[in-house]
Amino acid sequence: MRSRQTIEFVNKPRIIATGTIAGPKECAGVVGKYVDKALLDDKFGESTYEKAECKMLTFAISQTIENAALQEKDVDMLVSGDLLNQIISASFAARDFDVPFLGVYSACSTMSEGMAIAAAFINAGYAKRVVAATGSHFSSAERQYRYPLELGNTRPPQAQWTVTGAGGALIADTGSDIAITHATFGKVVDFGITDVNNMGAAMAPAARDTIIRHLKDTGRTPDDYDLIITGDLGALGSRILKDLTWEKGVDIQKNHVDCGEIIYNVIEKEFQGGSGAGCSAVVVNSYIFEQLKRRKLRRVLFAATGALLSTVSSGQGESIPCICHAVAIENV
Amino acid sequence: MRSRQTIEFVNKPRIIATGTIAGPKECAGVVGKYVDKALLDDKFGESTYEKAECKMLTFAISQTIENAALQEKDVDMLVSGDLLNQIISASFAARDFDVPFLGVYSACSTMSEGMAIAAAFINAGYAKRVVAATGSHFSSAERQYRYPLELGNTRPPQAQWTVTGAGGALIADTGSDIAITHATFGKVVDFGITDVNNMGAAMAPAARDTIIRHLKDTGRTPDDYDLIITGDLGALGSRILKDLTWEKGVDIQKNHVDCGEIIYNVIEKEFQGGSGAGCSAVVVNSYIFEQLKRRKLRRVLFAATGALLSTVSSGQGESIPCICHAVAIENV
Repeated sequence: MRSRQTIEFVNKPRIIATGTIAGPKECAGVVGKYVDKALLDDKFGESTYEKAECKMLTFAISQTIENAALQEKDVDMLVSGDLLNQIISASFAARDFDVPFLGVYSACSTMSEGMAIAAAFINAGYAKRVVAATGSHFSSAERQYRYPLELGNTRPPQAQWTVTGAGGALIADTGSDIAITHATFGKVVDFGITDVNNMGAAMAPAARDTIIRHLKDTGRTPDDYDLIITGDLGALGSRILKDLTWEKGVDIQKNHVDCGEIIYNVIEKEFQGGSGAGCSAVVVNSYIFEQLKRRKLRRVLFAATGALLSTVSSGQGESIPCICHAVAIENV
Repeated sequence: MRSRQTIEFVNKPRIIATGTIAGPKECAGVVGKYVDKALLDDKFGESTYEKAECKMLTFAISQTIENAALQEKDVDMLVSGDLLNQIISASFAARDFDVPFLGVYSACSTMSEGMAIAAAFINAGYAKRVVAATGSHFSSAERQYRYPLELGNTRPPQAQWTVTGAGGALIADTGSDIAITHATFGKVVDFGITDVNNMGAAMAPAARDTIIRHLKDTGRTPDDYDLIITGDLGALGSRILKDLTWEKGVDIQKNHVDCGEIIYNVIEKEFQGGSGAGCSAVVVNSYIFEQLKRRKLRRVLFAATGALLSTVSSGQGESIPCICHAVAIENV
C-alpha cells in the first residue's frame, strides 16, 4: 500500500482572504449574501460567454488580492485552471497579472488541487503569498461539453447545472488563523461510468478513495471534521458517496455535504444541483470560509472531484476517469 | 520588481532516469538513436490518433520507471499534462498507474513545468520519487487545433510540425549526479501575435522574459550554461529569441538551441521545425539527458515555452498569450 498520498504542512499555511463572484441563479441561493459580487447579467458585459467566464475569474483573483489588503506585486504566484479547452479562462486571466502562473487542470477538482499546490509552495518557503483560483460558466460549459444552448435539449434527471461563478483564495505564510494543514493528492479512479450526464456517479468513487486515504494517512475519523465537503457530486452523487464509504466501514452520513447539492435554492432545471469548477470555488471561498472565520466551523475536509473526460474521449467510447484532491482547512 | 520567480533547490533533486518514444519522422533525426522506442507506425496499433497519443505517454511513463529500475509502487506522484482538450492523454495514462496524479497545463511548456513541480515536491521532502511526463501527436494536434488532415491544407512557411512522441523523467531525492538545481516560473507574456501558424514569434518574448529573469535571479550569465535550450520555438522563433535577448543586453547566440529546430533532419514540410509538448519531452529526455550523463554537457537551462491559446480564443479574435517555465539541470 502506498502510504504517502497525504502531505502534512507543518508550517500551517494560512488562507488570509478569498474573493468570489457568481451569477444570478447562483446568488438566489445560500452563497448570495456571501459573494463579493452578485452578477445580474451572466454575460458580465462581455460579448461571449467565454469572455464573461474569463472576466469573472479575473475579478475573483483581483478581489482576493484586494480582500487581503495586498497588491498584485505582493503575490508570488497564481495557480489556476478551468474547464474550457486549453484552460483559456485561467491563461487569459493570468495575462492581466504580473505574477508567475502555474496552469493546472483537474476539471472540477481544480480548486482543491490549486489550494494544495499553493499550500505546498508556501509551506516549503518557495513563496510567501499564492493565489489559487478557478471558475466556470454554465453557458460556455454547455456549448463546449454538450450542445449549443439554442438547441434547447432536454436534460435527463441525473444531470447537474454548471455553476456560473468564480472564486479565489490567497494562501500565505502568516496572516490569519485559518490554515491548510494537510493535502491528500488523489489517484485516477474509473468505475466504468460512460453516461456524461451522470457525473455524480462517475466521481463518487474517486471521492471515496481520497477521503478514506486521507483519514487513514492522518489517523483521523470523520468525526474529527465538522464538515467533509465535496465539490460537485450533486444530490445523487453525494448519496452514492455516503453509501460507498459506508461499505468500507467509514460513516460520513452526519457530516458530509456537497457544494453542488447546496448551492441552488430551487430544485428545478438543475436537477441534481450544481457542478463545474466554479461550484466549489464559490461555495468554499464564500459561505464556508465565512463559517470558518466565525468559528462556526473549526475543521473542514474539502475534497473536490473532477471528471477527466473530453467530448473526444466520450466520442471514442471511453468511460470517465475521475480524481479527487483534498485539503484539510482548520482553525488553528 | 518581483524578485522571487526563481526557486533554488538546495537539496538538489536528481533526475535518475528518463523514458522516451517517438514517431517515424522524428526518429529519422537526432533523437532516433537515443529514444527507448522508435515507432514504425504512428498509430501505435490503436484505432485513433488520440488513443495512440495516450498509449505513447503511458509507454513513456512506464519506461521511465523501468529505466530507473523501479516499480510503480515506488513512485509517489505523477505530474503530467498534454495538448488535447481536457488533457485526456495524461488523465487516461494516469488511470493505468496506481499513483497520485497532478494534472498540469501550460501547452508546450508542460515538460519544464512538470519537472519544476516534481523537483519542488522532492526538494521539500513531500515525495521521494516523482515522474514528470508529457507528449503530443502530429495528427491529433492537427485535427484539434487546425484542420482535418483529409483536407490537405497548405501550410505557410512559418508553420511548425507537431512532434509525435512522448517523454518522461523520474525525479528523486537521490540516485544520480544529474540534478535540477533551480526552477524559474514564468509569467504570461502576450505581444499581440494573432497568427496561429506563427507560434515561434508568439512564444519568443515569453522565453526571453523567463531566461533573463532566471539569469538575474541566479546571478548567472549565459556563459554559465553549456546550453540554453528552448522547447519548440522553431528556427524562426529561435532567431527572434536571440535578437530579443540581445536587445536586452544578454547574448545567448553561442549557446542557445531549440528542440524544435534540431529534432527533424530534413527541412521539408515541417518548415520551421518541430513543435508540441512532445518536442522538448523527447529531445531533452533522450538526446540531452544522454549528453548530461556522458558529461558532454555539464549545465543546461531548459526553458520550454507554451502558447496558451485555444481555437475558441482565436475564433473570438484574441491574440496568443504565452508562457515559459525554466529548470536548470546540472551535473553535481
